[in-house]
Amino acid sequence: MGNEVEFRLAIERDLERIVEMLADDKLGATREQFELPLPEVYREAFRAIEADPNNELVVAYLGNKVIGVQQITFTPHLTRQGGWRATIEGVRTCSSVRGKGIGTALIKWVIQRAKDRGCLLTQLTTDKERKDAIRFYERLGFQASHEGMKLTLR
Amino acid sequence: MGNEVEFRLAIERDLERIVEMLADDKLGATREQFELPLPEVYREAFRAIEADPNNELVVAYLGNKVIGVQQITFTPHLTRQGGWRATIEGVRTCSSVRGKGIGTALIKWVIQRAKDRGCLLTQLTTDKERKDAIRFYERLGFQASHEGMKLTLR
Repeated sequence: MGNEVEFRLAIERDLERIVEMLADDKLGATREQFELPLPEVYREAFRAIEADPNNELVVAYLGNKVIGVQQITFTPHLTRQGGWRATIEGVRTCSSVRGKGIGTALIKWVIQRAKDRGCLLTQLTTDKERKDAIRFYERLGFQASHEGMKLTLR
Repeated sequence: MGNEVEFRLAIERDLERIVEMLADDKLGATREQFELPLPEVYREAFRAIEADPNNELVVAYLGNKVIGVQQITFTPHLTRQGGWRATIEGVRTCSSVRGKGIGTALIKWVIQRAKDRGCLLTQLTTDKERKDAIRFYERLGFQASHEGMKLTLR
C-alpha cells in the first residue's frame, strides 16, 4: 500500500531520524542536539527505554519513511483506586506531513494501546507555549485539569 | 530519637495506612475507597510498584507512625538530550501533622533521590483546584510551565 500510516516499536536504526524530528520544532531546536554521529546520550537513553517493558518508543511510518514518534510510559499507581496510567512524551511528526492527520493517528493509536494494557488514564504534559498542541489534545478529549510542574536538576 | 522525620521504602504492611492518607483529602475522598479489608486493587497496584525497579513508594515516619507517602517513577527519555526524569505522584501527609514541614521534607528527599539517580528533571502534575499545593511546589522551585492534560479511559 505505502500510503497508509502504520506504527511499530522503534529500533536503534531509527534513532537518527527520531532525534532529527525531536530537534525540528520551535522548543526542540533549543533543547536537542541533532548532529552526526549522534551524541552518545541519545543512544544510552534509547537502550534504557528499549530495556524497560514499561516504556515503548513508537514510530509512525509511511512506506519505509519514519514520519512520527512518541514515547509511552506505563506506570502502576495506588491513587484512583489503584491501576495503570499511560504517559505520553516526546510526540513529534515530520514537518513535511503536518496537517495530514498523522499526529491524530499517533495519539489515537496510543489511546488504544493504553486501553489494551488496561490503563485507567492517559496523560501528558505540554509546554504552555504550545497553544496549538493544547487545542489539538483538547480536540482528542484531553482536559487541561492539572498544572504540569517541572524542576530542572542540572 | 523518635521526633525526627525519616524515610524508607513502603512495605505491604504500610498499605492500609497509606490508603487511609490518600483518602483523607478533599479530592482523594471522592477518588479513593478506604475500607477494611482493603479493596484488592490497592494490593495489586502495590505489588506492581514494588516489582518495578523504576518505581519507588516512599513513606515518611516519626517514631513508628507513618505520616507521609509519595511515589517516585524514574523514566528514561530521549527528549532534552536523553536522560532520566523523576515523576512524583500521590503525595500526602497525615492531616494531624500538616503545617509542620513534613511535606517539604518529603519533596526535598525526593529531589535528592532524583539527583542521586542522575535525573535531569523532577516533575509532577497537580490538580488546578489545589491552589495551596501549587504555591507549595513553587516555593520549592517548581515552575508551572506546562499544562497537565488527562484523558480518563474508563
